Amino acid sequence: MNAFEDHGFVKLDVGREERTGHPEVVFGQGKTAEQVAVIVSRLIEVHGRALVTRASVEMAERVKESYPEATYDEQSRLIRYGQAARKLPGKIAVLTGGTSDIPVAEEAIGTAEWMGCDIDRIFDVGVAGIDRLLAQKERIREASVVIGVAGMEGALISVVGGLVRRPVIAVPTSVGYGANLQGITTLLAMMTSCAAGVTVVNIDNGFGAGYQAAMILQLVAEAT
Amino acid sequence: MNAFEDHGFVKLDVGREERTGHPEVVFGQGKTAEQVAVIVSRLIEVHGRALVTRASVEMAERVKESYPEATYDEQSRLIRYGQAARKLPGKIAVLTGGTSDIPVAEEAIGTAEWMGCDIDRIFDVGVAGIDRLLAQKERIREASVVIGVAGMEGALISVVGGLVRRPVIAVPTSVGYGANLQGITTLLAMMTSCAAGVTVVNIDNGFGAGYQAAMILQLVAEAT
Amino acid sequence: MNAFEDHGFVKLDVGREERTGHPEVVFGQGKTAEQVAVIVSRLIEVHGRALVTRASVEMAERVKESYPEATYDEQSRLIRYGQAARKLPGKIAVLTGGTSDIPVAEEAIGTAEWMGCDIDRIFDVGVAGIDRLLAQKERIREASVVIGVAGMEGALISVVGGLVRRPVIAVPTSVGYGANLQGITTLLAMMTSCAAGVTVVNIDNGFGAGYQAAMILQLVAEAT
Amino acid sequence: MNAFEDHGFVKLDVGREERTGHPEVVFGQGKTAEQVAVIVSRLIEVHGRALVTRASVEMAERVKESYPEATYDEQSRLIRYGQAARKLPGKIAVLTGGTSDIPVAEEAIGTAEWMGCDIDRIFDVGVAGIDRLLAQKERIREASVVIGVAGMEGALISVVGGLVRRPVIAVPTSVGYGANLQGITTLLAMMTSCAAGVTVVNIDNGFGAGYQAAMILQLVAEAT
Amino acid sequence: MNAFEDHGFVKLDVGREERTGHPEVVFGQGKTAEQVAVIVSRLIEVHGRALVTRASVEMAERVKESYPEATYDEQSRLIRYGQAARKLPGKIAVLTGGTSDIPVAEEAIGTAEWMGCDIDRIFDVGVAGIDRLLAQKERIREASVVIGVAGMEGALISVVGGLVRRPVIAVPTSVGYGANLQGITTLLAMMTSCAAGVTVVNIDNGFGAGYQAAMILQLVAEAT
Amino acid sequence: MNAFEDHGFVKLDVGREERTGHPEVVFGQGKTAEQVAVIVSRLIEVHGRALVTRASVEMAERVKESYPEATYDEQSRLIRYGQAARKLPGKIAVLTGGTSDIPVAEEAIGTAEWMGCDIDRIFDVGVAGIDRLLAQKERIREASVVIGVAGMEGALISVVGGLVRRPVIAVPTSVGYGANLQGITTLLAMMTSCAAGVTVVNIDNGFGAGYQAAMILQLVAEAT
Amino acid sequence: MNAFEDHGFVKLDVGREERTGHPEVVFGQGKTAEQVAVIVSRLIEVHGRALVTRASVEMAERVKESYPEATYDEQSRLIRYGQAARKLPGKIAVLTGGTSDIPVAEEAIGTAEWMGCDIDRIFDVGVAGIDRLLAQKERIREASVVIGVAGMEGALISVVGGLVRRPVIAVPTSVGYGANLQGITTLLAMMTSCAAGVTVVNIDNGFGAGYQAAMILQLVAEAT
Amino acid sequence: MNAFEDHGFVKLDVGREERTGHPEVVFGQGKTAEQVAVIVSRLIEVHGRALVTRASVEMAERVKESYPEATYDEQSRLIRYGQAARKLPGKIAVLTGGTSDIPVAEEAIGTAEWMGCDIDRIFDVGVAGIDRLLAQKERIREASVVIGVAGMEGALISVVGGLVRRPVIAVPTSVGYGANLQGITTLLAMMTSCAAGVTVVNIDNGFGAGYQAAMILQLVAEAT
Repeated sequence: MNAFEDHGFVKLDVGREERTGHPEVVFGQGKTAEQVAVIVSRLIEVHGRALVTRASVEMAERVKESYPEATYDEQSRLIRYGQAARKLPGKIAVLTGGTSDIPVAEEAIGTAEWMGCDIDRIFDVGVAGIDRLLAQKERIREASVVIGVAGMEGALISVVGGLVRRPVIAVPTSVGYGANLQGITTLLAMMTSCAAGVTVVNIDNGFGAGYQAAMILQLVAEAT
Repeated sequence: MNAFEDHGFVKLDVGREERTGHPEVVFGQGKTAEQVAVIVSRLIEVHGRALVTRASVEMAERVKESYPEATYDEQSRLIRYGQAARKLPGKIAVLTGGTSDIPVAEEAIGTAEWMGCDIDRIFDVGVAGIDRLLAQKERIREASVVIGVAGMEGALISVVGGLVRRPVIAVPTSVGYGANLQGITTLLAMMTSCAAGVTVVNIDNGFGAGYQAAMILQLVAEAT
Repeated sequence: MNAFEDHGFVKLDVGREERTGHPEVVFGQGKTAEQVAVIVSRLIEVHGRALVTRASVEMAERVKESYPEATYDEQSRLIRYGQAARKLPGKIAVLTGGTSDIPVAEEAIGTAEWMGCDIDRIFDVGVAGIDRLLAQKERIREASVVIGVAGMEGALISVVGGLVRRPVIAVPTSVGYGANLQGITTLLAMMTSCAAGVTVVNIDNGFGAGYQAAMILQLVAEAT
Repeated sequence: MNAFEDHGFVKLDVGREERTGHPEVVFGQGKTAEQVAVIVSRLIEVHGRALVTRASVEMAERVKESYPEATYDEQSRLIRYGQAARKLPGKIAVLTGGTSDIPVAEEAIGTAEWMGCDIDRIFDVGVAGIDRLLAQKERIREASVVIGVAGMEGALISVVGGLVRRPVIAVPTSVGYGANLQGITTLLAMMTSCAAGVTVVNIDNGFGAGYQAAMILQLVAEAT
Repeated sequence: MNAFEDHGFVKLDVGREERTGHPEVVFGQGKTAEQVAVIVSRLIEVHGRALVTRASVEMAERVKESYPEATYDEQSRLIRYGQAARKLPGKIAVLTGGTSDIPVAEEAIGTAEWMGCDIDRIFDVGVAGIDRLLAQKERIREASVVIGVAGMEGALISVVGGLVRRPVIAVPTSVGYGANLQGITTLLAMMTSCAAGVTVVNIDNGFGAGYQAAMILQLVAEAT
Repeated sequence: MNAFEDHGFVKLDVGREERTGHPEVVFGQGKTAEQVAVIVSRLIEVHGRALVTRASVEMAERVKESYPEATYDEQSRLIRYGQAARKLPGKIAVLTGGTSDIPVAEEAIGTAEWMGCDIDRIFDVGVAGIDRLLAQKERIREASVVIGVAGMEGALISVVGGLVRRPVIAVPTSVGYGANLQGITTLLAMMTSCAAGVTVVNIDNGFGAGYQAAMILQLVAEAT
Repeated sequence: MNAFEDHGFVKLDVGREERTGHPEVVFGQGKTAEQVAVIVSRLIEVHGRALVTRASVEMAERVKESYPEATYDEQSRLIRYGQAARKLPGKIAVLTGGTSDIPVAEEAIGTAEWMGCDIDRIFDVGVAGIDRLLAQKERIREASVVIGVAGMEGALISVVGGLVRRPVIAVPTSVGYGANLQGITTLLAMMTSCAAGVTVVNIDNGFGAGYQAAMILQLVAEAT
Repeated sequence: MNAFEDHGFVKLDVGREERTGHPEVVFGQGKTAEQVAVIVSRLIEVHGRALVTRASVEMAERVKESYPEATYDEQSRLIRYGQAARKLPGKIAVLTGGTSDIPVAEEAIGTAEWMGCDIDRIFDVGVAGIDRLLAQKERIREASVVIGVAGMEGALISVVGGLVRRPVIAVPTSVGYGANLQGITTLLAMMTSCAAGVTVVNIDNGFGAGYQAAMILQLVAEAT
C-alpha cells in the first residue's frame, strides 16, 4: 500500500495520520489558493478533517466554496475543518508577553484545539510588571504543558521555566524593532535562557508549539 | 519559609525540587572547583542528590573528596550523585547523526537517567545512509520521547519528525566546520525544519534536552 | 577578431558560445525592458537563440514585438528563444522538497532544456514524509545528474546525496520564515551537509544549477 | 595652556579631570606593561590617583615597583591607586544573574568605589529562581542607581527595570555558550528589553557601567 | 490589593506609577487603534495622564474622540495626554548628528517633557564639521544629562562623552544605508565607543533615552 | 568668524569650502523637499554652486522653482547647480562590472564632474568575459585614478588592481541576490581582495568614490 | 541483506560502494584514533580500500600499525589505503589562487586520485596578476572538470567560469583575515559570482570538490 | 616575454614592477619560512628590493641568512630589503586613535617608506579627548595624504575627514572587545562615516593603506 498520493505539484502524505496520529497540516504560504483547495479537499476526503496555517482570506474563500463549515480566523490565519476524534487529557496554558504576541498565540491555540486539546489563555504577563505573571502562578502550575509566546528579549520564558514541573515550549515572536532583528534576538535569547526544561520553536511558529504540546498530551493519553 | 539560601557568591534555590520536581542542577562552566564543591555539598545535604554539568576533572576530584560515591563521566562531563527516588515510565530514544555527536548525547542521557528515566541509545544514524535510520524505525517509534542529536545540517531531525507520534527534541551540535558556524547553522536549520512536532534546545545542550524529556515523562507519571 | 561587441551600456560577449558552448545568458533583473530587448535582439542575430532569466512580463512583451516566437513562462520568469542545436545525452532529475519550491525548479528546467537536456520532474518529495522520496529512488538513481531544490532546512539533499552514484547539485530556496533567514540558513545547511558529492549554488539560483548540469552532460557528449 | 601631554606613543589627556571630574582611566589591554607603568606614573603625579582596567599581573607588578600602595584585584583585573577626594551620595546596587558574572560586577564596583561611590552587592539573583530576586526587592529599591550584570538571555534586567524608580544600567556578560554568541545575544536582548528606563553598555564592560553610575551620583552631588 | 487590572488582551500595570514614579507607557506598534484607545482611556482614569509611543494617526484620532485635549505629533509619533505633576530639576540637552535624526530626538524630548523635564535642543552637530559641535560646548556642558541621537557611525557620542561631567545616553538611529545595516552598525559602534560614561539604548529608541534621562532627574529631585 | 550658520534643523557648514576645497554636499535621503530647498538655496548664495545626492524628483522640482538652471539626473539621482571654478588635471576612469551598476557609476561621475574632473566611462567589463576588460587595458592604464563599480562578487576590482600604477577605488553595489546580502558580500569581498592598492567605500556610494577621486586630483593640481 | 554493520559507536554503511560507486569515506575530525582505526580496518576488509580526511598524525600511526602500506600526507591530512579498481577518463585541473591554498587543493587531489582520476595541478594563478592565469588558459580548457581553490575574495572562480566549456567547482578557503570572516566572505562571494556554471562546496572542503569531480568522471565512464 | 616565473608552488609576478611601479609584495601569513625565503631571494635578484608583510621571526631569520642587510621590525612584522629608487613628493600623515593601534600604523609606515614616501607620525589622537586631535590640525592639514588608523568605533576618521582637503584612508583595527566584533564594527562604522572623501581598507591592513597612499604620491610624482 502506498503511503502517499501523487498529484503532480504535491505528493499527499496520506499515511501520516497512521504514523503520527494526525493528518498532514498544510503550510499555506507560497502556495496558490487553487493548490490549497485541491489539497484540503483530498485531505478531508481521506481523514475527515484538515488544517491550513498561514492561510490568506482568498484561500479560505476557495475552501469554503466546497466546505462551507470550514472556519477561518483572521488573527491566527488558520483554516480549520473538523477536529480530532479523541479529546486529549490535561490542559495547555498559553501565555503571551504582550498584546502584540496574541496572533501567534492564537495559531498555537487553534492548532492544539484542532488536535483535541483544552487551552487556558493567560495573555499579557510580560515580566516588566512581574506581579502580573506571579498572580497567575497557580493557574500556570496547573497546566500539563506551558507554551510561552513572547517577543523582544523573551524574558517571560526564563521566569516561567523556573516555576513549573511541566514542559515549557517557547515561541519567539517578531514583535520588537532594531536590535530585535525580526525575532532572531528573541530566538537566540530563549535558546540561551538560564531556565532548564525549555525548548524553542521557530520565530512566530505558533503552529509548531501547539503541535508539540498536543504530541505530549497524546503521549499522556496513550500511556495511561 | 525562604525558598533559597544565601551563600554570598551563590543563592541556592533549595525550593526548586518542590516547585519543579528536581533539585537545582549546577552549571559548572565559569565556576571554580571550590565553588562547585560548596554548592554540591549543600545540595546533597538538602536533597540527597546532585548533578553538575560541564564539569572539569578538577571539580570532580574536589567533589569526590567529600562524596566518594559521586561519579564523573569524561565524555558527558557530568558529575552525578544519587538519583531520583521515583522511576519515570516509558523510554527515551536518544539518536545521534554521527559518532562525533555522542558526547552531547551522553550529557542528555546522564541527565535523564539521574532524573529517573530509561534510555535507548541509537547512535550514528545520520541520513546520508538512510537505511541505517530506517532499520531502527520500530525502535524509535516505540519510544515515549525522542531526542535527536546532530551536527552539520541536522537533517536527521526532519526525517525522524515525520516518522513518529511522539514529541521530538532536537539538539544541534557544534560538529562541523566552515559554513557550519560552530553549530549556529545546525541550530537555525533545525528551527526551520519542515517536520512538525520538533522543538530545539541550544547548541551542544544535551542537558536541556534530557531535562525536557524527563519533564514530559514526569507529566505522564503524575497524570496516570 | 574581437570576442565582444561594444553597445555602450553593454559589451556583448559574442565569443562566449565558442568558448563555453552556449551564448551569454541575460540576467534580466536590474535592466530596463529596453536594454533587454536590444541585447536579446543582437544575441539572436549572432547565435540564433537567447535566454533571459529573472525577466518581467514587460521585458517579455518587448522581446515578442520583434520575435513573436519567443516564449515567456511566468513561473520560471524565463524568456526563451530557440534552442541548442545539439541534444545532450542522459537525463536530469529535478527534485523539489515542496510545492513552493517549484518556480525555482522550473528555472533550472527551462535553462537545461534550452541547452539541450532532457528532464525528469520529481516534485514534493521533502523528507518529512520520507516514503515519498524513497518511492522515487529508482527514478532518481537512473538520472545522469540530480538537481535538488529545497527551502527550509534543505534536508532532502543530504538524503539524496547518499543514494546515488551521480553528481548532485543543490539549490537552496528562500522558502521558509524566521530562522530561515531568506534562504541563508538553507544555503549554509546544504554547504555543511553530511552527504559527499553535493555542490551548491546561490539561493533561488535555478539557472545556475540547470547550467552546471548541462555543462556536465556536454562533457559526456563531447567525451564519448 | 595645553590640556594634554605628548609622550610619543601616548598623548595624556591631563585636562580630563577638569572637564569630567575624573582623570583619564587607562585601558590596559593591548598595551605593554612598560607603557602602562609610564602612563600610570604620570597620572599619579598630575592627579594623585589612577585606575587601570583589564590589567595583567605583570602590569600590576610594574606599577607596584614605583607605587607599592597600588592594589591589584585578580577578579576585576583593576589596578587602583588613590581615590576620589569627594565621597558621592547615595548607593549603587550591583546585581548579578549568576556566580560567573561576578568578575564583571567587580570591575563595575572597583571603578565606582575609586570614583567615590558606595556599593551594595546583590549577587546570584537570576530569574530562573524568581524568589531570590523578589526577596531583595526592598534592598534594590533603596539604591540610587542599579547596575544589573547578567549573561545568557539577560532576563534579570527586564524584571528589575519594572520594579524601581531609579536608572538601571545593564551589563551583558559573555557567560553562556552556543546561541549566546559570546554575549552578543545578551547585548541585543537587553537592548530590546520590554522594560523602560534601562540603558546598556558593551559586553563585559563593568567599567563603563560603574563609570556611568558614578556620573549620575556626581550630578546628584553637584545639583544639591 | 492588585497592582494590575485584567482586560483580557491586556493586563494593565496600574501599580507602576507607585513603583516607578510614572504610569505605564503604551507601545503602539502592533496594537490596534481600538486596543490603544481602551488602554489609554483606563490609564487616564487611573493616573490622569497617558503617553503612547509609535502611534499612528488612526490611533491618535481614536484617542481624541474621547480625550480631545490629547495631542499627537507626527514627527515623534507620540500621543500625549496630561503631564507629570512635578517639574524635575535641571535640563536635558538633546543633540542630533544630522537633520534626519530629528524625529527620534523628538520622541526622546516628548517623553522627557511628559515626565516633567526641561529640554535644550542642539540639532545637526555631527562631527564632520567639528566646529558646529565645539561651538555648543558650553551649552552641552551646562546640561544635567546629555542625550546624543545619531545615525551612520555615531561618532558624535565619542566626542561628547569626552567633553562633559554628566551622564551621556546614546541613541543609534537607522539613518544611513549599506554598511549601516539599518542602524545595527551604529548601535555596535556606540557600544564600543572609546568614551567612558556613555550608555546606549535600542535603535531609534528615543523613548528609552528620554525615560532614562527623566529617571536620573527624578533621582536628583528626590535626593535633594 | 563662525564657520557655520544655524538654521535650527540644520547647521550649515559654510566654512567647509575653505577647509576642504568644496562646499558641503547635501545628502537628500531622509530630508524633506522643503529642507533640501532651504539648504541648497543658502549654499548657492554662499558658494555659487550646490550638489544634492540621493535626491527625489520632488526635491529637484522644489530646487528648480528658485534655480531653474539646476539639473536633475534620474539615474544618478543627483541635483547639480554650478560647478567647480577650477578644472582638475588628469582623468578618472569609471568602470562597471555590468549594466545594472551604471546608476551608481553615474553618481560617482556626476560628483567628480561637479568637482572639476574629466571622466572616461568604461562600462560592462565584468570578468566573466575577461576579454572585455583586457581590451580596455590601455584606456584604464592611462587614467589618473580608477573607480571600479561592481556588484555580485566584485571580482573586477582584483583584476584591475593588479593592472595599474594608479590608485583604485572600489564601489560595491547592491546588485545581486541571495548570498549577495544586499551588497554586504560584495563589500567584504572587495575588502579582502588579493590586489594591493585598492580602497573601498560604502555600498552604492558612488558619491564617496567620486569625491575621493577628486580629492586625489585636487592634490595633483595643488602639488604641481 | 543489511546495508550496514552496527559497531555501537558507528554503523558502517557497507552498502555505499554498491549504491554510489565508492566506499564510505571517514571524516576524522572529532573521532578518536581508536575509533578511526576500527572503522578503517573494517572498511578495508569489506572494500579493499579506505580514505580518511582531516586525519591526525596519531590516527595515521594507529592505522599503519595494521596496514603499513597506508599512506599519510601531512599537507592534505589524508590517510589513503588502496585505490579505485577502475581508472576514470579525462583529467581534473586543480587551480589555486595562491600558495596558501595548496593544502586544501591537495585534499581535493588526494580524494580524486583515490577515486581513480588524473590531475593537472595549476597553482598560484590568482587574478591580481591576470597574466599568470591567462597563460594557463589552454591547459585549463583541456580539462574535463575544473576545481578552483581560492581564499580572500575568490575572484579566480569568476574569471575561470567564463573561460571554459566544462563544469567548474569552487572551493572557498579560510585564507585571509578581517573582512574575510574565516572564509565566509569567500564562500558567499563565490556563490554570488557573475560566472555561470559554477557550483560551490563548504569552506576548505577539498574533499567535497574532489568527490564531486570524480562523480562527474564516473558518469562519463559509465555513459560511454 | 613572460611576465611571471613558474616555481611550482608560486608563480612570481616579475612583470608587476613594470605594470604598477613596484615589485610584488609577499604576504607571509600561511606560507612556510622556506617558501618566503625562496620568493624573497628571487624578488631581490629581479628587482633589487623586497617587502614581506605579516612575517614571523623565523621567516626573517631565514631571509637574513642570505641577505643580512634585510631588516625585520617586530611591531609591524615587516621584512624589508632595499627601497624604491625614487623618492616620492609630499608627506603622509599617519594618525592613530590610541596606543594599541600603533603596530598597524607601523605596517602602513614601513610599506610607504619602502615605496619612497615621507611620513609624519601623529599617534594617540582619539576623539575622546578632542583637543589632542585639534592641536594637530595644522600638521594634519599639511599632509598630502592622511591615513587614519583606529579601533573601537573609529570616530577619529569622521572628524579628520571633515578637516582636510586631501584624501583620507581609514584602517580599522581589531582593537576593542565585545560589540567590536574583532574589528568588523569598526570597519562597518568607517564605511558608513558621515565624512566625505574617506575610503577604507581591510581590518588591520596597514599595508593596504600605505600602498594606496604611495600610489597617490606616485601619481603626483608622475603627473608633475
